[in-house]
Amino acid sequence: MSLTTAATTVPIACNTAAITFVPSPVAIPAVRGEFALRLAMRHAGTRDVTVRYELLGEAGLPVVFVAGGISAHRHVAASAAFPEAGWWQEQVGPGRAIDPEQHRVLSFDWIGAAGDLDTVIDPVDQADAIAALLEALQIERVETFVGASYGAMVGLQFAERHGARLGQLVAISGVHRAHPFSSAWRALQRQAVALGALQCDEAHGVALARQLAVLSYRSPEEFDARFGAPQVVDGRVRVGAEAYLAHCGQKYVERTSATAFLRLSESIDLQAVDPRRIALPVTVVAVAEDRLVPLQDAHALVEQLRGETRLCVLRSVYGHDAFLKEEGEIARILRTTLAEQLEQAA
Amino acid sequence: MSLTTAATTVPIACNTAAITFVPSPVAIPAVRGEFALRLAMRHAGTRDVTVRYELLGEAGLPVVFVAGGISAHRHVAASAAFPEAGWWQEQVGPGRAIDPEQHRVLSFDWIGAAGDLDTVIDPVDQADAIAALLEALQIERVETFVGASYGAMVGLQFAERHGARLGQLVAISGVHRAHPFSSAWRALQRQAVALGALQCDEAHGVALARQLAVLSYRSPEEFDARFGAPQVVDGRVRVGAEAYLAHCGQKYVERTSATAFLRLSESIDLQAVDPRRIALPVTVVAVAEDRLVPLQDAHALVEQLRGETRLCVLRSVYGHDAFLKEEGEIARILRTTLAEQLEQAA
Repeated sequence: MSLTTAATTVPIACNTAAITFVPSPVAIPAVRGEFALRLAMRHAGTRDVTVRYELLGEAGLPVVFVAGGISAHRHVAASAAFPEAGWWQEQVGPGRAIDPEQHRVLSFDWIGAAGDLDTVIDPVDQADAIAALLEALQIERVETFVGASYGAMVGLQFAERHGARLGQLVAISGVHRAHPFSSAWRALQRQAVALGALQCDEAHGVALARQLAVLSYRSPEEFDARFGAPQVVDGRVRVGAEAYLAHCGQKYVERTSATAFLRLSESIDLQAVDPRRIALPVTVVAVAEDRLVPLQDAHALVEQLRGETRLCVLRSVYGHDAFLKEEGEIARILRTTLAEQLEQAA
Repeated sequence: MSLTTAATTVPIACNTAAITFVPSPVAIPAVRGEFALRLAMRHAGTRDVTVRYELLGEAGLPVVFVAGGISAHRHVAASAAFPEAGWWQEQVGPGRAIDPEQHRVLSFDWIGAAGDLDTVIDPVDQADAIAALLEALQIERVETFVGASYGAMVGLQFAERHGARLGQLVAISGVHRAHPFSSAWRALQRQAVALGALQCDEAHGVALARQLAVLSYRSPEEFDARFGAPQVVDGRVRVGAEAYLAHCGQKYVERTSATAFLRLSESIDLQAVDPRRIALPVTVVAVAEDRLVPLQDAHALVEQLRGETRLCVLRSVYGHDAFLKEEGEIARILRTTLAEQLEQAA
């Protein structure tokens, strides 16, 4: 429901709805913290890293771990303590699919996201850092790990390596491997960063890399509906999507260093999970139009998983970004899986 | 038939076959020439350009005009006069689908390909330059225009603007418009060139742009079959396709200037043909796996063409590059369309 739309048509009903269905966020406790971790990394020896987390909801509630793409972070949703919008505001919050009145929502900043770790970071390292985070917070068990994109990859790693501490996994638009074509796409993004770095213009290279990434996150169908014909401007051809892409690139460099981008981009390419070693319940969500994670790879994943396995295939013009854009469909899947988990626990 | 393969198994039969089926190229006359043209360009006023052509086969034979992608050129096939391999060696030559013993094969270097024309070049300009080339050579009529990729786009322009001089068009993997998503892809390639130019390293930017283009020419299916898992080398992740792509980029910069690449890349994005203004026979060849020219756009094209229209849909892991790789299928289509044309003329 969009408040803006509702307000235009029936302003009074809208206000009532807001009062009735959206409880004050003051009621939800939220804490942020960080701790130093000596992490045995897969390709980089033992390193001292900082783990930064955010925890939303009362102690004692079943824990849901939430992880997004490489540009996501620990702040998934607004709270009284941290009122700025989170990256998954649509799915996490009172009355939303992942409701911090019913679950304790845990999330963290990816190892390497701060740009302070210039080494090869395996998805394995992220899963092990999450296990260490649980130890540090004395949380014995994650009831549901909800991961999207890179978060789904790390969720599979966590299920493979730390399955005893996990109830179920929801893996959205991320699978057991990186597709070689998508890896090539990312390798060229990293080369754009390298080209920018040659002239000491890190931001320019990262902005171009991000624009290339955005193309892989979306679909031709969306661009066709959204952007018009090219124009000749000042002796150059300017295509319909160019201003939008430039905006995406600019926004990204404001919050991402070249090192963070490079190391997390590389990390995606290192994904290698053996699904036959995962015996817990997994809900795999795939998008038919995803150009980065082809549907066939989701099929291969569910064929090999050993536990109770479910495959949900969505259709979306938003391709890989459907987890951010198809709010209704994603909410429906999350509500179902989380409700089942609560029933089982009861 | 590969001589290498045959030689391994039945060397004598192979030699016999070679003598029997491949006539000496000495018999085929081939000329190259160029002339100065004052061209009224669509976006750039009147300019003096040089038109460089190659003509293969006896005068009097029906003329086939051949045009490929933006990196193709006038030398389509080897001859005694110009013995180096051409860019479409598999399709053009004695005994091949486009046989210079039966047709006079005309081709040219794209306007702008020499990098000497740093202005906006519309596909219309290419079609008009071809018309001027015909005037200069006193060729009244092209019986068949065979265009692939950008060549198909220009073929459609030629059919729209100079249809009275054309018998039929075979348009392979190129349609009446540039898809907005593909245009975005090309715009980012041009930005890679711009990023390289900022540090006076034109070749580096063009090489990266070419690698990005190669991704759009091929398919995930091919890369999946061809390239293995990433490796960690010297503290960096190197993906399976990286060496291959680097090679493609390097080869390209050896023969293409930044200006030529930029202006011809832009030109693709300016494609705008009204198919309802084309009433001559058109064979549209589309590839289901083409990520640059979606099959739906080929459908839209054939629905609007007014003449006798045929659509051939190929399946190929080579995607947009199928016209260079699926020799058998493309040859079959070309043989059929050219034979029909010869029969009609008889």
